[in-house]
Amino acid sequence: MKLYEQYADEIAALIGNGQLATGDRLPSVREARARRGVSASTVFQAYQRLEREGLIHARPQSGFYVSASAAPARPAPAVAAPAGEANEVAVSELVFEVLRAARSPGIAPLGSAFPGPDLFPLAALARAAAKGLRRLAPEAIVDNIAPGNPRLREQIALRYRIDGIRVQPDEIIVTNGALEGLNAALQAVTQPGDTVVIESPAFYAALQAIERLKLKALEIRTDPEHGIDLDALAEALARNRVAACWLMPTLQNPLGSLMSEARKRALVALLAEYGVPLIEDDVYAELYAGSQRPRPAKAYDEQGLVLHCSSFSKCLAPGYRVGWIAAGREAQRIQRQLLMTTMAASAPAQTAILHYLEEGGYDRHLRRLRAALTARRNAAIATIETAFPRGTRLTRPRGGYFLWLALPAGLDAMRLHEAALREGIGIAPGHVFSPDHRFHDCLRINCGHPGSDVLPALSRLGALAHDLQRTTA
Amino acid sequence: MKLYEQYADEIAALIGNGQLATGDRLPSVREARARRGVSASTVFQAYQRLEREGLIHARPQSGFYVSASAAPARPAPAVAAPAGEANEVAVSELVFEVLRAARSPGIAPLGSAFPGPDLFPLAALARAAAKGLRRLAPEAIVDNIAPGNPRLREQIALRYRIDGIRVQPDEIIVTNGALEGLNAALQAVTQPGDTVVIESPAFYAALQAIERLKLKALEIRTDPEHGIDLDALAEALARNRVAACWLMPTLQNPLGSLMSEARKRALVALLAEYGVPLIEDDVYAELYAGSQRPRPAKAYDEQGLVLHCSSFSKCLAPGYRVGWIAAGREAQRIQRQLLMTTMAASAPAQTAILHYLEEGGYDRHLRRLRAALTARRNAAIATIETAFPRGTRLTRPRGGYFLWLALPAGLDAMRLHEAALREGIGIAPGHVFSPDHRFHDCLRINCGHPGSDVLPALSRLGALAHDLQRTTA
Repeated sequence: MKLYEQYADEIAALIGNGQLATGDRLPSVREARARRGVSASTVFQAYQRLEREGLIHARPQSGFYVSASAAPARPAPAVAAPAGEANEVAVSELVFEVLRAARSPGIAPLGSAFPGPDLFPLAALARAAAKGLRRLAPEAIVDNIAPGNPRLREQIALRYRIDGIRVQPDEIIVTNGALEGLNAALQAVTQPGDTVVIESPAFYAALQAIERLKLKALEIRTDPEHGIDLDALAEALARNRVAACWLMPTLQNPLGSLMSEARKRALVALLAEYGVPLIEDDVYAELYAGSQRPRPAKAYDEQGLVLHCSSFSKCLAPGYRVGWIAAGREAQRIQRQLLMTTMAASAPAQTAILHYLEEGGYDRHLRRLRAALTARRNAAIATIETAFPRGTRLTRPRGGYFLWLALPAGLDAMRLHEAALREGIGIAPGHVFSPDHRFHDCLRINCGHPGSDVLPALSRLGALAHDLQRTTA
Repeated sequence: MKLYEQYADEIAALIGNGQLATGDRLPSVREARARRGVSASTVFQAYQRLEREGLIHARPQSGFYVSASAAPARPAPAVAAPAGEANEVAVSELVFEVLRAARSPGIAPLGSAFPGPDLFPLAALARAAAKGLRRLAPEAIVDNIAPGNPRLREQIALRYRIDGIRVQPDEIIVTNGALEGLNAALQAVTQPGDTVVIESPAFYAALQAIERLKLKALEIRTDPEHGIDLDALAEALARNRVAACWLMPTLQNPLGSLMSEARKRALVALLAEYGVPLIEDDVYAELYAGSQRPRPAKAYDEQGLVLHCSSFSKCLAPGYRVGWIAAGREAQRIQRQLLMTTMAASAPAQTAILHYLEEGGYDRHLRRLRAALTARRNAAIATIETAFPRGTRLTRPRGGYFLWLALPAGLDAMRLHEAALREGIGIAPGHVFSPDHRFHDCLRINCGHPGSDVLPALSRLGALAHDLQRTTA
């Protein structure tokens, strides 16, 4: 990471946590040089990047100022207080309905689960696929069978090692996307009727997996900024026989919350105390906004209790369906389950990603991707600030491409969803993020697509929310 | 299909069913022209192909004769008589052990589940992948999500239509190999504790799926030539509450049995009477030896009770993990299950196969593949006839790449497996094809790899069987 990028990240963090507010003036080049000992060129480049990302703007003859869209003018949605009981789940039907609507052709992609496909190096991947497949010896095809291509597993292990995380290459298993790893992990550590801890709100795929495997969900209050409430979790563990936790400590879907390293460490220690496995969904790890990739909870795992699931789908190769799991002590069981069902991730996809990674350029792509997503997030936030009714609350996630909105009291997100669909706009209503539809006044917005697709739709959505407010009042 | 190929197939069938025996002289060109009205060139080309396949040989100045290796000198293994009770299954461990051994580097591939990778148009597929990925619009990636790429599903539907089989494009779902479809099908139509009918011997993946889903297996006697015994099945259905049948009516693994159209029709009618779904594993359909692709049981399905599973893995694109299921009335349930677990077969793999199919040449490849497999089968049979002890019995399947051997009385296939492994030869001992290890004197041989890999290993295996006989006696 270059110096100017570090500096820009530091300022972005100050803006993100409110220490720099809308309208605040940034240090001049001279001040910055004096205070931080950085060169003029570093300061200029950092400010240029922040300007590109919409966080600051220049005023002629005056300097750089924090933009209105950058600071947390809207408070974050309140933290929900779940009932504290494990419940059966029946949201699958609704999820399918919402996802189908979001995927219809011509629908503005605010309800989509995927970032804009324009953000990915698809041409480079296609070249890597062509080259890799040309060189692939016919008898080497079986090397792709679970646990997966050994060279690809090495590349994955290497990225853990760079971050100083101890992961044995042996425990890494290539999966058909993270979703297969997450489902296999849940199946490996539970029996029907067991209780599984999830965040509140939770990623709907966790709810669907719990429903499919006839498990019970125990929701734990989760802060939009700091993630799952560890006190509430400790109480839940003391009171309930919990078979597993399925959590997203980094850039949670839908909240975007990011647990600090200290919290992650405490989480792992707490679960180790009870011997409860953590299924860690870490698919957004590379989409952080700061200067440092957030370490996963897996980094603090000493007992092999953390099943760390990730994939290339959200950060490199959408649709290739190549993910992996660092499965700790469950590695053999999960490998066998894959051998019995899908047997392998596709050889062309593994080959393409392997060759792309080996040729280098992945980190350059990731830097561009993160900058683009930050710019898109900020533009979307600015539009929401203007377009939505007073009283709308909004998260300010430190990465990713989801925003979580709480509508003013009394407004129902399902009604907004229906009104939006009629106008060709998809959203993900809060109902699908909890077993009991607690988040009926919330919605998840995907802001990872090009502004030309997102911003007009957001403006129109805000107008629809105003309409809804009028007719509800 | 060309005339000479039809004619060659007819003769091969006569040899296969014993109407032409070892040493029999084939009609001269003049005789053939007179009897069949075919041209001299047709006769010559047909005989040339049969000679290449090892079924006949020329004697100078005399004509063509049926080769020793071609006729069924060894009788087929006897039909097993299972106990008639549904049993829990616990073979998974053993299967993993055997498969792992078969996949070790440097092991002769007689125990492998895959045909020789040299048989497939991998370069053409790589070109199709490159071209397809270059043309793939980023926003079209989501089209590959379950139920799968619409154009690929059309290509699959087209092949059903060409065979006059009514399959709705809507019921076709692309899967990660046939294995995912088979597992999803079994999961869709059963609850833990249910009874599932299988063949005896059965494909071990069916046993593993039954074990994994906590079901019970009810084995039905299966003839090495004609497939499952319909009388025994009728009796089993009358006596038991059966939740599903998982069968391979075409080129069963491991027997190679091929049910006639009449039997398939009767099978579907019988199951329809009881409302029992048929999970039809049809992955070897394209590897038939005759002139006509055998119709699947699905062709006779009027109630949507047949879940027809197949894939491109054994006939076109090994390792691509692209299969499909024509899921009848379970289509929506299965599509949803896939959406919740693997979401999609890999976009590069779907794209590559789609472009390969659209460009044409698939049928030409398949004709070459079938001829090569027939030649390999015949060469393997000839070697086994010579190398193995008297009393060894052997199937003569009408396609595919598996042979099923029954050793002379008293010899244990697991001991042969262990002895073979020590010499770098993998086999699949009969123990893994039944819940109760009934086929302890049988083994499955993969003869679909190049002769240079297969034939010396077979000779050595025969010698080991002789050794075993000496030490056992």
